[in-house]
Amino acid sequence: MRIAVVAPSCSLKPEAADAVQAIAAQRGDCELAIHPQCFQTDGHFAGPDEARLAALREVMADPAVDAVWFARGGYGSNRIAEAALADLPEAAGAKVYMGYSDAGFLLAGLHKAGLAAAWGPMPQDVLRDGGDRAVHRALDWLVRRDPSALEPDIQAPAMAFNLTVLSNLLGTPLEPDLSGVDLMIEEVSEHLYGIDRTMFHITSSANLRRAARLRLGRVSDVLSNDVEFGADEQAIVADWCRRSGIQFGGAADIGHDARNRVVPFRTEKR
Amino acid sequence: MRIAVVAPSCSLKPEAADAVQAIAAQRGDCELAIHPQCFQTDGHFAGPDEARLAALREVMADPAVDAVWFARGGYGSNRIAEAALADLPEAAGAKVYMGYSDAGFLLAGLHKAGLAAAWGPMPQDVLRDGGDRAVHRALDWLVRRDPSALEPDIQAPAMAFNLTVLSNLLGTPLEPDLSGVDLMIEEVSEHLYGIDRTMFHITSSANLRRAARLRLGRVSDVLSNDVEFGADEQAIVADWCRRSGIQFGGAADIGHDARNRVVPFRTEKR
Repeated sequence: MRIAVVAPSCSLKPEAADAVQAIAAQRGDCELAIHPQCFQTDGHFAGPDEARLAALREVMADPAVDAVWFARGGYGSNRIAEAALADLPEAAGAKVYMGYSDAGFLLAGLHKAGLAAAWGPMPQDVLRDGGDRAVHRALDWLVRRDPSALEPDIQAPAMAFNLTVLSNLLGTPLEPDLSGVDLMIEEVSEHLYGIDRTMFHITSSANLRRAARLRLGRVSDVLSNDVEFGADEQAIVADWCRRSGIQFGGAADIGHDARNRVVPFRTEKR
Repeated sequence: MRIAVVAPSCSLKPEAADAVQAIAAQRGDCELAIHPQCFQTDGHFAGPDEARLAALREVMADPAVDAVWFARGGYGSNRIAEAALADLPEAAGAKVYMGYSDAGFLLAGLHKAGLAAAWGPMPQDVLRDGGDRAVHRALDWLVRRDPSALEPDIQAPAMAFNLTVLSNLLGTPLEPDLSGVDLMIEEVSEHLYGIDRTMFHITSSANLRRAARLRLGRVSDVLSNDVEFGADEQAIVADWCRRSGIQFGGAADIGHDARNRVVPFRTEKR
């Protein structure tokens, strides 16, 4: 299986690329084609919009590529997502796309365009403590759809998003249909009051209120408040679900960490 | 003129209340009724939702109150805004409401409900460097509609919002009609990449694209990035306006500071 790695958000660290290539070589069941664009930098981004878009469009159109694996998150895929999804070449529909965090902008748009998108670990995760397991989990699913890589309680159809990304998707051309979806969210590096505010925003959405249930992944690196907020993240999410009539489904095994599981957006018929 | 002060978000510092009362006494043209709820605390908030809502409803319904002045921002007015606007008593329509920052959730909803809302300095601003001028500016406008308090380039109808608040308003029952509006935004304590992401979100809104123009107030206390973002806030906002076909109107004289000017949401016929 040939897996192309591109970086629609921020640049991939060379040491992460080396470590992931070593894992792929050791496995022997896949070939990683890490696009040179992954190492470009332009301010915050892995190269200018044009370069990130061109690399993504190139691998989407390549019939020899079986999967597109987003190198890492950060910020920026939303800036090129609409253009990436315009006039899709036929080869784009014959592959799967995986990533999480900022890549959720693309996952949403790809899914909406009818392509196979999946939330899951990314190459840069190899630098996390225990990150090699995250990379193996992603590859186990990409190469052989290993069910042990999946979030364990998925009731398909399912989707997963970073909470801030989901909030910023709503009302944009990337917003997917959430009707009947087992919807999972997670968050990193935000204040609890910001999470409460974002929950107000997303649970006001009529589309989101049609989800089958909302589940909460891990909320990590919570920024400290000058006063304690007064509720933890689980209570916050449960409260907004109650207010909005959305079923709160409890915990989801996703997050900005090495334990992050795979959530395919489309039920595959194989 | 009788001005009621309530705190729908976070609690007012007693020293701010004292300083603002001293200013009002010195002026002699208004009476400030600072509601005891302003000093309640409940975790992050100035009392539980029920207490903040009750105080707000009480002053809205009081025919002796000419203006409702929100004590300060922080976070939390969105949690009570819908309930505050339900079954409005007649007296609620005979007064003006002023605040900014988190109070924007209420300003939006009040305006949408046909009431007179205005962006402007708040009591807690007295603690800022030069904050007494901010308080006088707010009172000059509340008491005698002093045009020198106004943002100088307003082309009515106008509105002003904190960028994050505006983003979290979109798609909620509080979202006002922005058609033809001279729309001003400002931001505080965010990363530039977050501002770029939020601009993506708001400029995707069909409602916002009907604004007459978008102007940028001050962006203060920008959080530092590990790498320089690569564009400043003016370039970011101008770029998203260009992408979305919104007219970028340049600078607005608003912000989280003592220079913050008044922006009435409704053109008054007096």
